[in-house]
Amino acid sequence: MEVIVPADEEEDARAGTSARVTTFTPASLRELIDPVRALGEVVVDRLQALGLERAHIGCELAAQMQPASYLSMNLHHGALRTLWQKELPCIVASGADALLATASARKTGDELGKLRLGCEIAGLAYRSSVNAIYPGATEQTVAGAILQEYRNALQGKPVRREEAYFFCMSGPNASHADAAYARTRHRTIESGDVVMVHCNSATDGMWSDITRTFVVGEESTAYKKVKAAVTSATHAALEVIRPGALGKEVDRAAREVMEQAGYGGNFTHATGHGVGFAAANPNGLPRIHPCSEDRLEEGMTFNIEPAAYFKNEWGYRRCDVVAVTADGAEVLTPF
Amino acid sequence: MEVIVPADEEEDARAGTSARVTTFTPASLRELIDPVRALGEVVVDRLQALGLERAHIGCELAAQMQPASYLSMNLHHGALRTLWQKELPCIVASGADALLATASARKTGDELGKLRLGCEIAGLAYRSSVNAIYPGATEQTVAGAILQEYRNALQGKPVRREEAYFFCMSGPNASHADAAYARTRHRTIESGDVVMVHCNSATDGMWSDITRTFVVGEESTAYKKVKAAVTSATHAALEVIRPGALGKEVDRAAREVMEQAGYGGNFTHATGHGVGFAAANPNGLPRIHPCSEDRLEEGMTFNIEPAAYFKNEWGYRRCDVVAVTADGAEVLTPF
Repeated sequence: MEVIVPADEEEDARAGTSARVTTFTPASLRELIDPVRALGEVVVDRLQALGLERAHIGCELAAQMQPASYLSMNLHHGALRTLWQKELPCIVASGADALLATASARKTGDELGKLRLGCEIAGLAYRSSVNAIYPGATEQTVAGAILQEYRNALQGKPVRREEAYFFCMSGPNASHADAAYARTRHRTIESGDVVMVHCNSATDGMWSDITRTFVVGEESTAYKKVKAAVTSATHAALEVIRPGALGKEVDRAAREVMEQAGYGGNFTHATGHGVGFAAANPNGLPRIHPCSEDRLEEGMTFNIEPAAYFKNEWGYRRCDVVAVTADGAEVLTPF
Repeated sequence: MEVIVPADEEEDARAGTSARVTTFTPASLRELIDPVRALGEVVVDRLQALGLERAHIGCELAAQMQPASYLSMNLHHGALRTLWQKELPCIVASGADALLATASARKTGDELGKLRLGCEIAGLAYRSSVNAIYPGATEQTVAGAILQEYRNALQGKPVRREEAYFFCMSGPNASHADAAYARTRHRTIESGDVVMVHCNSATDGMWSDITRTFVVGEESTAYKKVKAAVTSATHAALEVIRPGALGKEVDRAAREVMEQAGYGGNFTHATGHGVGFAAANPNGLPRIHPCSEDRLEEGMTFNIEPAAYFKNEWGYRRCDVVAVTADGAEVLTPF
């Protein structure tokens, strides 16, 4: 395999598994360079070197969820394709979206190892929750303290590149945690509050997706009942996971428990979705959704996140990362 | 103006300045929804409501730097356009990239206020550097501690939505801080180290771009000399900034100081680039680059970041955010 990367990323690219690394320089003091043109020239060179008379090149043409690689991302839209097609009209861009989505749903042993390590480090960070969450703390300080613990836990671990996001949603804010994105606010935590801590972290490109819920002080009867239902729903889902099972069967197992406990209407989202290359993609394969015909295969990784949301009051979610094994499921977040 | 947003973002959209907010629902338990189709249907509806017989719609078609709005971003590529063009072939997508880039280079008073506030909060966080940086601390703990201080400083400030990234690069790592992206590593800080702390933070969508450099212990003669040159280069650039000045004139003023001090070869990047809507876009308008003919206008915001990098040894950068006023420059980072 060959990758073409900006010169500043050469070191990381060489640490990867690509056989050949080609670089380009997107900036210079001597001229104002168009970064797409700088990349395009190298792409055209490499394509010409292949000596193709006619070819289809698989491209990502459809919409997709892309994890943020940095605080700012250089998006090409169609500019790169337009440029190369002008130079090499015999080469056609074909959508390879479905192919790539399917291929990336199953993880190699190396990828699984990175995800397992990432989950383990997140688990160490979650241990600090007991100290970080107290009456008078704010969601911001809780999320910050656990993130700092995550950074501490990273020390000495074999991780070249990491990113981590911890979110804290407390009291009524946790009841809205079924929204498309998690969000830490300034709310001050009070005694008796239910507090959700959500984590998306990446270790060398493999993203985790984890939630744990805590209570400040005594667990109420309602809290205990919901917690028991969610725990049972997770176990029910795990029982069904094995190669050949369908996404909707796993969803059904978890949802049935929640419905029987009286929380069917509070479990407002799917039981899970693929995790790994894409951080927090609700349409990642395999989809663990009531309508999903996605068939589980060994090496697939996804989350199991049964939950109950009581609008404007509180919410409870437990989100685990699991991998499909030869005959069942491995929980990568056993904490 | 009208915006079309996912239902989960309605509250934020209504807090903005758009006259009309239309929402769409990208997920459901009853079916597996294609989010582009969900959005596309609303877009087609709204376009049909305009009763146009023929139209050109300005779109972002070229490459661009996009700030990360969350840990994962839903990128449409061309999918949305393809969908609407099938339904409404009379409506043509035209590239509006240059128009939007030019319009967003000048900030309104409201936007400038948000950026000023963001810089002020970052300044409060930088105050904690003196406590966060000490021999034995790691780059990770330094960046984490200052980020936590930033979160504390945010409390009570009129900011609806914030994001903040602090990076720490120490010793030889600071000598590579001219790369396309900043990166906090695990290096342990030693006595005598030069330590660079870089910040990109967003307050309600307006991004700052700030760097300060510190030394652990005594300032060496070499350090004092570089610091003096960079400080003079900043002042020289500020002297030139006013409506009508060209980007290359501002760059020249700063670069001349660095060259005369003997650091011309160590100042490896442009003096600055537009900041505000795009976090860390080296091609943001106005470009403060040796070849830039971009003409400054009142309300434009950019950074001024003279620096000297001594490869594999150390580096010094001071990056300020400035706004063009009626007759000069306002420094938004006067700390």
